Amino acid sequence: MAARRDWTRETLVDAVRAGDRRALARAITLVENGDPLAYEVVHDLYPGTGHAAAVGITGPPGVGKSSLLSGLIRIARAEGKTVGVISVDPSSPFTQGALLGDRIRLTEHFLDPDVFIRSMGTRGHLGGLAETTLQSLLILDAAHKDVVFLETVGTGQSEVGVLSIADTVVLALMPGSGDSIQALKAGIMEIPDVIAINKMDHPMAKTMLNEVRQVLALGMHEGWNPPIVLTEAMRGEGLNTLWEKISEHHQWLEAEGELEQRRRGNLAREVFQVASARARRHIEQAVQGDEELQRLLNDVQERRLDPLTAVREILEKVFHIGDEHSTHPH
Amino acid sequence: MAARRDWTRETLVDAVRAGDRRALARAITLVENGDPLAYEVVHDLYPGTGHAAAVGITGPPGVGKSSLLSGLIRIARAEGKTVGVISVDPSSPFTQGALLGDRIRLTEHFLDPDVFIRSMGTRGHLGGLAETTLQSLLILDAAHKDVVFLETVGTGQSEVGVLSIADTVVLALMPGSGDSIQALKAGIMEIPDVIAINKMDHPMAKTMLNEVRQVLALGMHEGWNPPIVLTEAMRGEGLNTLWEKISEHHQWLEAEGELEQRRRGNLAREVFQVASARARRHIEQAVQGDEELQRLLNDVQERRLDPLTAVREILEKVFHIGDEHSTHPH
Repeated sequence: MAARRDWTRETLVDAVRAGDRRALARAITLVENGDPLAYEVVHDLYPGTGHAAAVGITGPPGVGKSSLLSGLIRIARAEGKTVGVISVDPSSPFTQGALLGDRIRLTEHFLDPDVFIRSMGTRGHLGGLAETTLQSLLILDAAHKDVVFLETVGTGQSEVGVLSIADTVVLALMPGSGDSIQALKAGIMEIPDVIAINKMDHPMAKTMLNEVRQVLALGMHEGWNPPIVLTEAMRGEGLNTLWEKISEHHQWLEAEGELEQRRRGNLAREVFQVASARARRHIEQAVQGDEELQRLLNDVQERRLDPLTAVREILEKVFHIGDEHSTHPH
Repeated sequence: MAARRDWTRETLVDAVRAGDRRALARAITLVENGDPLAYEVVHDLYPGTGHAAAVGITGPPGVGKSSLLSGLIRIARAEGKTVGVISVDPSSPFTQGALLGDRIRLTEHFLDPDVFIRSMGTRGHLGGLAETTLQSLLILDAAHKDVVFLETVGTGQSEVGVLSIADTVVLALMPGSGDSIQALKAGIMEIPDVIAINKMDHPMAKTMLNEVRQVLALGMHEGWNPPIVLTEAMRGEGLNTLWEKISEHHQWLEAEGELEQRRRGNLAREVFQVASARARRHIEQAVQGDEELQRLLNDVQERRLDPLTAVREILEKVFHIGDEHSTHPH
């Protein structure tokens, strides 16, 4: 495999630690391909991680996440911070344009040696998206990036796999984001740490601001209360304030000892998420390659065998685990 | 257990087949509690299922799904069809009101012996939501309901567990559903079979209609093209047309032989979904009850052991499966 010819475990680990761009690009590609070398490299790098502030940026498509991100990178760089970006685009027939657009908005940073940007699709990850994002974040962290932005499109739970590892989550909304407001109000979308209302020039921006205020008022509690920032990313307006709020949240996490707690929780959740994704893949592969299990599935499809019995028999055969809350019917 | 005292496997199966309301309520409660009796009952009922048309109704909170549903039930009943409803509400501190509101909108049907309505939260399902929904649908199907509505709030992938078993999916939108339109356009939200734009009196309704038309134009292909229906659920306007379109979709599925295909695909997906949910629960329980695995998790949290090695060791210990794409690092 090409990966092996030009990099060994040791040279790749050293080059990533040194922040070598080619090494970072290669390491993340290996992660995406589920290459054993990537696994070994992250294994070696892990003890040196925990330095980077992981900032998630989510929000519905079209709110201008990439423009916000581009502006935030500019500000972080002006403060002398090194930056990593993992931008997750849903791989869909329709999004090629969007993806290209995002790339264009970020090009101003492509030549900056202290900014590393990587776009990845949501599908075709051998280890699942949560695993790829986690491993890529750890690589950028080990490369001494001060801030790693995790950008992902969000309309509810779909982005969880990407954001569950972030220290700070920024939700970007815009006038017209009625569904997101409703989702926040209904508790379907988790309350973020910072909210940006982009396209503040829009006549409905103030209305949106009040709606968001009302939603947050419902959830008010001790501790951190999510600030709302009005932005106009294209003109760079409000971005300094947005960056301040993001930094303040990180300082608050550190001051309250919450950072350690949140990261412990995030890491545990990641481990379960990745383990579950692998277990699922294992089940699917096992059924694919097993005539008896295929027959089982076919019996379900022809209404001869109920789904839960099939599930139990699959789990018994694949993992040798019994069904913890069902007696044997035959 | 109370369940056992008043129902045996045989009496419950017979009473469900006879459509006895108390039996249906009890059987679904047993499903929610993950009671072995529920498993046995569905096991016995399954060969008699496949009769009901499963119609999913989703959409962001606040679009008026329950009002639409209530109107559709009225029309289905006028056609002499028996109806089952599984209404999934996200269990969130904020939604108690909404839930109550939903119930109130549906009360007109509570006294109709041929309508069975059940609300369930999204959390606290021993077998996971996908499993509970599937089993409940099968029970209502076996009770000879002609139509079973699966109502769930939707902002993206979060509702998949509920809708993946539906024959027909109806997406309800309203003026201001900009985020959903964007999600459809970006391919994050799946294109439904029928779209209802509720609150058609709203000045922006026509704009929304055109936006939806444009999105659908992107996805145009042979076969079924999702119709868009303007409704005003509160006044019952457009509901007859909506019901017609839902029925037309079902007839189209049958005529094209798609119904069988879709159901085979849905059932296979459900089996994998339920099996994965159980595998995940099994992993979490195993780690909880195992000091060595707890230590492993703690080593990850203290950056001594990388997450993927922990995942691999957990999977090895819990399921005795090796890591299919990583070599042993030590």
